[in-house]
Parts: sequence; C-alpha cells; structure tokens
Amino acid sequence: MSRTDTEAVEETNTAFYEAMEQGDFDTLSGLWLDDEISCVHPGWPVLTGRGEVLRSYALIMSHTDYIQFFLTDTKVTVIGDAAIVTCTENILSGGPAEDGQDLGPLVGQLVVATNVFRRTSEGWRLWSHHGSPVLTESDEDAEDDA
Amino acid sequence: MSRTDTEAVEETNTAFYEAMEQGDFDTLSGLWLDDEISCVHPGWPVLTGRGEVLRSYALIMSHTDYIQFFLTDTKVTVIGDAAIVTCTENILSGGPAEDGQDLGPLVGQLVVATNVFRRTSEGWRLWSHHGSPVLTESDEDAEDDA
Repeated sequence: MSRTDTEAVEETNTAFYEAMEQGDFDTLSGLWLDDEISCVHPGWPVLTGRGEVLRSYALIMSHTDYIQFFLTDTKVTVIGDAAIVTCTENILSGGPAEDGQDLGPLVGQLVVATNVFRRTSEGWRLWSHHGSPVLTESDEDAEDDA
Repeated sequence: MSRTDTEAVEETNTAFYEAMEQGDFDTLSGLWLDDEISCVHPGWPVLTGRGEVLRSYALIMSHTDYIQFFLTDTKVTVIGDAAIVTCTENILSGGPAEDGQDLGPLVGQLVVATNVFRRTSEGWRLWSHHGSPVLTESDEDAEDDA
C-alpha cells in the first residue's frame, strides 16, 4: 500500500461527501461503480444496484435544503485494488423551509460509515456505503421505553 | 467471478454467524483478517484493529446466553480478491437468566449488515462488518418523541 493510494482513496471519500453537500447528483453518480453496488442509509434496509441506490440519493437530495458533513476519525485501509474508509459523519442538515422561513429547522445527527472503494482505470469508485446511527445511552433508554 | 468464489464467500459468511450462534470465540477470531479490520455493531461507534474488534465480541458473547441469526436477502458480489455480502439479520437473542429461569427473555431484532471479505491463502477472511438497526415507522416516531 503506497501513501499515494491512501491519499487517492481519501480524496474520493471527501468528494463523495462534497457532492452530497452541494446536491450535485451527477458528480455523486459518477463516483459509484457501474454495477453490483450496495448502500445502507442510517436506519434503512439495504439498497442494491445503481437504480435503487441512485434513486435513494435523488430522493434524499430533494428533501434536503442544507446538509453539511463534518468528518472525524477517518481511517483508510487499502489492500490491493480495494479500500475501506471508516469515518464518523457529524451531520448538520435542514429540510425545506416552512412558514416563510429561509431554511427549515437544522438537525444534528451522529452517524458512522463504512465506505468500500474499488480501483478502476478512472480512479477509485464507491462499491458500498453503509451508514448507521450511533445510539447514545438516552436513545437506548427511549427504545426500551417504546 | 466464478460461481465457486461466490459460494466460498457465502460459506465464510455463514460460518461467521454460526460461530456467533455457538459462542465459538476461537473460530470467530480465525475468520477475521490479521490486521486493519473494522467493525460496527448496531448503534455502536466504529471499532478498528483486532484488539478492539475481538474484545467487543468477547463482551457480547459473555452477555448473550442465546442468539440465533435467520439470514435473508443475502447478496454476494466478488470483484478480484475482495467480496461484499449484504444480508438482513433477523436476530432472536436472550440474555442471562433471571429469577431462576432457564433463559433470559428473548428479544427480536432486525439488523442489516454489510460484510467485506478478502481472499487469503487460507480462504476468505473478514475485513469489515457493519451492522445497523432497521428503523420502522414506529421507531422513528419514538425517536421524534424522545
């Protein structure tokens, strides 16, 4: 594993989150492999294939007026032509405005992600994204009460 | 991708869950790569490296008297020397007995997993496991109320 590989993978990982922040669907689509991809959004079931996965991003983007990812704990491992990035997504997002406001209410979310990349002739591409909510003690209690 | 690769990966995936069901820590440890591994249990932050990951399994096993995984929607993709399995883990588990009962109360859980495997000279080995709860509408409502 060369340092260059690690850097290139982290750049693609960053580009993935920037495309989300900018609501840039075309760039996001181009970062995924052509087939056999899978994606789990926090709390969602598994989505597989470009059709299902990309439709979910179109849906999320259409319901999101503002989203920002503050990535922490980013760790990259590269073995051969595959790579895994794990990171914590500290998300601040807002839905469409209501009642004549400029922006809907902002919501903070703590999500951890495992992103799997594949080396291609055009650079590293996403093979799988799995994001899940980090449940704090109080969330667990709330679940127990439910 | 040969049919044999897909079958071999699915066998290792099955062995992983069987080791959990049997509380067989040694077999479970042997199914993971030697280093650079990562693991996310449902609702947990990311664990990285054999030390952290295997300690978490020892902890989970010590708190689990009974656990059974009914896997559904298992999908395997193999590209070169890496493979991804996505599946739904329909989990039935029980903690230590209380009040003189044979077994603690059984709990059902719906979890989706993305498991990444790496081809080694000794067969396919786990590189990453990411499990997350599937939130139903009523869970979401409970979260909103919390």
